[in-house]
Amino acid sequence: MFFATAAQAQINDSIMIRKIYDEVLKNSECYQNLAYLCSNIGGRLSGSPQAAKAVDWGKNVMEGLNPTRVELQPVMVPHWVRGEKEKAFIINTTTGVKKEAAICALGGSVATPPEGIEAEVIEVHDFDELRKLGTEKIKGKIVFFNRPMEPTHIHTFDAYSGAVDQRWAGAMNAVRYGAVATVTRSMGLKIDDFPHTGSMKYNDSLPKIPAVAISTKGAEELSALLRNNKSTRMSIKTSCQTLPDVESYNVIGEWKGIEKPSEYIVVGGHLDAWDNGSGAHDDGAGCVQSMEVMRIFNAIGYKPRHTIRVVLFMNEENGLRGGKAYAEQAKNKKEVHIAAIESDAGGFTPRGFSFEAPNWFMNSVKNFKPLLLPYDVYDFDGKGGGPDISPLKEQGVPLVELIPDSQRYFDIHHTADDTFDKVNKRELELGAAAMAALIYLIDTTEFH
Amino acid sequence: MFFATAAQAQINDSIMIRKIYDEVLKNSECYQNLAYLCSNIGGRLSGSPQAAKAVDWGKNVMEGLNPTRVELQPVMVPHWVRGEKEKAFIINTTTGVKKEAAICALGGSVATPPEGIEAEVIEVHDFDELRKLGTEKIKGKIVFFNRPMEPTHIHTFDAYSGAVDQRWAGAMNAVRYGAVATVTRSMGLKIDDFPHTGSMKYNDSLPKIPAVAISTKGAEELSALLRNNKSTRMSIKTSCQTLPDVESYNVIGEWKGIEKPSEYIVVGGHLDAWDNGSGAHDDGAGCVQSMEVMRIFNAIGYKPRHTIRVVLFMNEENGLRGGKAYAEQAKNKKEVHIAAIESDAGGFTPRGFSFEAPNWFMNSVKNFKPLLLPYDVYDFDGKGGGPDISPLKEQGVPLVELIPDSQRYFDIHHTADDTFDKVNKRELELGAAAMAALIYLIDTTEFH
Repeated sequence: MFFATAAQAQINDSIMIRKIYDEVLKNSECYQNLAYLCSNIGGRLSGSPQAAKAVDWGKNVMEGLNPTRVELQPVMVPHWVRGEKEKAFIINTTTGVKKEAAICALGGSVATPPEGIEAEVIEVHDFDELRKLGTEKIKGKIVFFNRPMEPTHIHTFDAYSGAVDQRWAGAMNAVRYGAVATVTRSMGLKIDDFPHTGSMKYNDSLPKIPAVAISTKGAEELSALLRNNKSTRMSIKTSCQTLPDVESYNVIGEWKGIEKPSEYIVVGGHLDAWDNGSGAHDDGAGCVQSMEVMRIFNAIGYKPRHTIRVVLFMNEENGLRGGKAYAEQAKNKKEVHIAAIESDAGGFTPRGFSFEAPNWFMNSVKNFKPLLLPYDVYDFDGKGGGPDISPLKEQGVPLVELIPDSQRYFDIHHTADDTFDKVNKRELELGAAAMAALIYLIDTTEFH
Repeated sequence: MFFATAAQAQINDSIMIRKIYDEVLKNSECYQNLAYLCSNIGGRLSGSPQAAKAVDWGKNVMEGLNPTRVELQPVMVPHWVRGEKEKAFIINTTTGVKKEAAICALGGSVATPPEGIEAEVIEVHDFDELRKLGTEKIKGKIVFFNRPMEPTHIHTFDAYSGAVDQRWAGAMNAVRYGAVATVTRSMGLKIDDFPHTGSMKYNDSLPKIPAVAISTKGAEELSALLRNNKSTRMSIKTSCQTLPDVESYNVIGEWKGIEKPSEYIVVGGHLDAWDNGSGAHDDGAGCVQSMEVMRIFNAIGYKPRHTIRVVLFMNEENGLRGGKAYAEQAKNKKEVHIAAIESDAGGFTPRGFSFEAPNWFMNSVKNFKPLLLPYDVYDFDGKGGGPDISPLKEQGVPLVELIPDSQRYFDIHHTADDTFDKVNKRELELGAAAMAALIYLIDTTEFH
């Protein structure tokens, strides 16, 4: 009798998951929603007018999905602006030739003086090498961090993790030895001329020096010049600045659960995106996929038992203020979260989910595997949830992140090339379907 | 003792597979080889000057890989030429407005008369509907086959298989009822203005009528017009023709095995490609990946036990003459083939391999799974080998095909958009590595 029931439940589950996939592959709205966000709003860094427009857009789309309510949760966000387009030249001191280099300021960086900075460049590969060179070799120079992402990692996020310290902490480390600026090799595996921005951090007890990224192609050229001529120089001019914090919002759509309305399942992505591109993969994709989950449930007539919240988080890129504010409110209100799921690794074909969750949750998750394998969703072994939901960890909330194929992500991540045309409709839809299927399974599971 | 040895063998295998992946991700030449093929030669349909150039190119690249010998195996191939660019108009007979439609002749089609064909269009969705409409409704008309590829299939090749009868056999079926031409909806899931060519077949005992493909966007527009006005017309002008067969070649590189030189493992793709694009994914990718396998083995110092043949097959697209000639020669020479592996499904991130192989082979293959899973190669459940190696089936040769992610393939398949810029370097490399790893495992396995 037990077996018959369990078997029937599996059959019902597979029928429902098939419905989810059919619905999204035939009728999805996520692709056209992303087209609108990318084309009509574009890059939308926290505090910008575009970010404000994106909040309105998110609220509108949510309201079209018949929610119980939509909340704009206020959150004060940093307001960094790039200012005029950056300019830099690599100066071959042997020939006197100046060649323009493709650079961009890192998010949070201070500007150069109005006349720019010009200095000799010294190439280093890690903070240990920097320390060994010391003040004698570094003082007055531009430090060029040029350790490439390691291409032999199969998952490109591992290559990113292994290199991004140069971007995040390059300036705060280099300034200790008297550097006047830092130029970091872009965090990308492809050799091209798109500089990758991204956030960086100062040590507040040390002086702040300008920090920029150079394209991978520019990094290769600069390194080649330095091999021949240690006195190669660069000139850099940036005019970015940090303005006072601005009020912005997490956009929260809520659909009351029919059985357990005071228990929540969160699904989301982040609404803010770097100003240089359109934030298509990072993370417009995650936003439209998360909203698509509720569109699918509505369309197939599935009424979740738990309350579903679709959250478009503000300020993942340079502060995580939205994620922190959401978690704080949940804690203050003593809300019970069954799970939080994030899509923030690009709108590529999904391969699985990673988890940061207690055993009581993972024990049930392993039963989901055979139900998702027919949809090429097979990898449940990764560790970690998404960035915006990570502040929920201390409340013991099971965290989940959608894991798409990662090969192309760092070709466009944080660049002017993160645009709508880089997103494939079906790949985006399959991500939304995988999340909807997982949420359906979580919603219908009795965890023990 | 046995277990210790088996465990040690697994460790050795995983070390070797790691070396293969490291080598390709650091030093591959397949991407630059593909750049050359696509940019300097481009589309290369059998019998064309470009196909002859591609043969020379393939021979050259092979010779750079230190083979025991390179053979150009002669094969007579069909020589179909497109002639002048096709032109077609959809004629709104209510308004009199003529709108140009994006079409292309199907491979093997006859031309229209020099002045073109103009006739009423009738839309059908399958051969059963065609038969029911019969001569009364069809005679003198252009038959418009408009059954879309079914989007709910997860693997797009299943959607292709379910629709491609309209392209292959549309004309031979429509002519029975007096149709004057056929227009088939392009075999693609994306709505755009690129018509997809591909081969079609006549029934030699029936008249031959011109057969073209219309872009998916054009098909949607034509269908919308027909809903309002059954007397919507089209004019079509093509000037394609089939010239006498031409001698061409399979390009075969051979590396003698150190233990079993008279037993062969074949790896290949097809060298010919439709004339409208550059044949980047179809199947330049398979050619450069197959050659990369031997570059990797040379670079890491692996000497195969069996003789490896890298085969660039000619004429997959419109005749399969190369594949048939290879199999015939193998049969005549009584060559023993341990396995044949093909890459002809695009240069996208691999997900696994499909097989058409006897049990003695599959029993060992299942042991390979845990060794390839760390590289995201997990799917061994598909059925079927590649087209060019399929004629080896009757000799009992185990057939294997590389299975890449299929979501983007039919966006570009047989279109002007199958160009080098659609190929991601790492995705291409991972396919080459997966094939090299599988061949290493096959080469070192004692099959029982």
